[in-house]
Amino acid sequence: MKVYKGHILFTKSSEKFEVIENGYIAVENGCVVGVYNVLPAELQNAEVVDYGDKLIIPAMNDMHVHAPQYRNQGIAMDLELLPWLDNYTFPEESKYSDTAYAERMYSRFVRDLWRHGTMRTVAFATIHKDSTRLLMKLFQEAGMGALVGKVDMNRNSPDTLTETVDDAKRDNEALIAEFNQPNALVRPIITPRFVPSCTPEMLSVCGELAKKYNLPVQSHLSENRGEIAWVKELEPESKFYGDAYNRYGLFGQTPTIMAHCVWTEGEELEMIKHNGVMVAHCPTSNFNLSSGMAPIRTFLNNGIKVGLGSDISGGHDLSIFKMMVYAIQVSKMHYCQDKTKPFLTLPEVFWIATKSAGSFFGKVGSFEKGYEFDALVIDDAELNHDNYPLLHRLERFIYIGDDRQIMHRYCRGKLIEM
Amino acid sequence: MKVYKGHILFTKSSEKFEVIENGYIAVENGCVVGVYNVLPAELQNAEVVDYGDKLIIPAMNDMHVHAPQYRNQGIAMDLELLPWLDNYTFPEESKYSDTAYAERMYSRFVRDLWRHGTMRTVAFATIHKDSTRLLMKLFQEAGMGALVGKVDMNRNSPDTLTETVDDAKRDNEALIAEFNQPNALVRPIITPRFVPSCTPEMLSVCGELAKKYNLPVQSHLSENRGEIAWVKELEPESKFYGDAYNRYGLFGQTPTIMAHCVWTEGEELEMIKHNGVMVAHCPTSNFNLSSGMAPIRTFLNNGIKVGLGSDISGGHDLSIFKMMVYAIQVSKMHYCQDKTKPFLTLPEVFWIATKSAGSFFGKVGSFEKGYEFDALVIDDAELNHDNYPLLHRLERFIYIGDDRQIMHRYCRGKLIEM
Repeated sequence: MKVYKGHILFTKSSEKFEVIENGYIAVENGCVVGVYNVLPAELQNAEVVDYGDKLIIPAMNDMHVHAPQYRNQGIAMDLELLPWLDNYTFPEESKYSDTAYAERMYSRFVRDLWRHGTMRTVAFATIHKDSTRLLMKLFQEAGMGALVGKVDMNRNSPDTLTETVDDAKRDNEALIAEFNQPNALVRPIITPRFVPSCTPEMLSVCGELAKKYNLPVQSHLSENRGEIAWVKELEPESKFYGDAYNRYGLFGQTPTIMAHCVWTEGEELEMIKHNGVMVAHCPTSNFNLSSGMAPIRTFLNNGIKVGLGSDISGGHDLSIFKMMVYAIQVSKMHYCQDKTKPFLTLPEVFWIATKSAGSFFGKVGSFEKGYEFDALVIDDAELNHDNYPLLHRLERFIYIGDDRQIMHRYCRGKLIEM
Repeated sequence: MKVYKGHILFTKSSEKFEVIENGYIAVENGCVVGVYNVLPAELQNAEVVDYGDKLIIPAMNDMHVHAPQYRNQGIAMDLELLPWLDNYTFPEESKYSDTAYAERMYSRFVRDLWRHGTMRTVAFATIHKDSTRLLMKLFQEAGMGALVGKVDMNRNSPDTLTETVDDAKRDNEALIAEFNQPNALVRPIITPRFVPSCTPEMLSVCGELAKKYNLPVQSHLSENRGEIAWVKELEPESKFYGDAYNRYGLFGQTPTIMAHCVWTEGEELEMIKHNGVMVAHCPTSNFNLSSGMAPIRTFLNNGIKVGLGSDISGGHDLSIFKMMVYAIQVSKMHYCQDKTKPFLTLPEVFWIATKSAGSFFGKVGSFEKGYEFDALVIDDAELNHDNYPLLHRLERFIYIGDDRQIMHRYCRGKLIEM
């Protein structure tokens, strides 16, 4: 049993923050036992880690990121999607056939996630089994949670990133055999890149693997209008883009997260809702790639689960705090055009980034009893130059702070240091 | 004569970067004498400051910022414009009747501008003469350039921020007498808050002061649709919002900068173009306050001058580099809706933020011969982990860098330290 003392802020629901000034969080076996204003009698002898005037908040979850695009973070943003893929993304991902290169880049990538306070990640790797394995080992060694996908792709891709369906199946099963342990922090996730990259046979094998091993699924959905038209052409039997995944058992048959959903509406929205698919909202990427502005208020109104993703390197910023800011801003542009769509509030985006996203990993993202203790300790002394109230301190950190204020990081109750 | 050596990047035009790898900039009396690939014979004996592998770029210009809203940076972003003004902005600005408070906050504000590499600023102060004077002295002492406006307002404002026209005139003239020196780095700028805050008499006096002392003018224009409707009501004789300034000699009769112009079109756009008014584009503020997305491509197509502004505290970020990113993103959302409006490129926004904005201060914002040497030295070693080419290094710094990479700052040839 360990007790952490400080100013505790988190969200049980999207409506408001829970704020416990000078409060206590008791943690045992990696999980929260309780949060208290006053330390209960039975905990008087527990070891107390006193964080004084600092803020203790849930750690961040990045629900969509391409680990092998790390080198391209913040470059080539003047290009449109296709030349960007052809000239930057695919050549870079091809390099991951070399595990030495992968180790160099992935080590930095994992460290950068840590630096920004992201303790759980849903990541795309590449088609390469060995470097995907290496990324998973790096997360394991760090003690950080991750669902890592060996990417499956066998059409409309460069030769260096094209595999056979049999190879994909064999490589996935090798990783599954090694990493699919119950309750493991790092697990595989079935990852067809997106419909245009996968033949029906590939999608079919992906669906079978997800079902057979009860594994989660991730992919891309309705990111831009050109892509949607292309999918219609490639999969004429599907009623809409999401249906192309659904037909292969890749749309909520096991826990599923779909990145973007910028143009999702009508039947696709209904199916996401009905099947319990989570949306990974990646607002910076949607700006940078001229994709559009996802209708998150509409998703929330429909009870659709949402998380936030950095989508490096379509997105340029690894900070999930900055994704909260961008998510609010996108919603304000919708509100500006249609006042019946209230913009997202800070407690809403915080809840989305923590408890809502965290639900994809289990009981993660809150400090309620039984939740895994994933936490950040924020030392905002520098930003708190005029004694701001606690909620303003948190808001200021989210809007104008950065990794310099993240003093400590916990994942599943363990202090993670690098 | 001093010579600075390093990788030199700047924009003569909006089309492309000038890139001089391992180049030299010669500076004399605060101005650029020349930029060279190879040091000319006549400069062989000049003192050389060798910045090695670092980037040397023009310093940033913040064309619209409310200095007295500094304390509110990054808070109260869940509010709409009116409750935000009433509950946060006006009460905060009212505190600047107290010069001790002003000194405490303004010192931090100037230091933060410095930290983010902004060497020239066009700032709103408050109605208070003494604290406005203090802000000007702080800029002077720092050696940083600024146009600082004592704000004029006498209607639709709280009592604590309402003055008489006579008081406004007297206080402006006192500051003009003290600070309106030719070639001074810090000068006054005539600053009617915006039409709703100023009676016709106040606007009239502002116009007269600008004309009499040949001073520049700043204000707000067409930020949101409610405001535009309100101006129509208040100034029924004006054909459009901008015309309400024009009728009082506040719209290009002397150099004029208008913040926002989110909803500017038609006749207002034509008048801005015809009168040579500069637009201060404040993309984060326009997001945060649900104002909308300014049509910057249309302005550029019309040859309208544009600069970038942080608009603290409607905006939350003091970094003009991040304003470049946001400006590109806004333009990409326009492009997404209308493919005939190409999004802004990196050289375009860099040129907007440096040479275009800098023209408001004289020959500022470029390294061409005769330009004042306002420069930043960027040590991006941390970001350059895989030996990126120079243009990618600059792009990465703009997208993912921060003040940590700004190693040295120059204003008018002088190294500015704090």
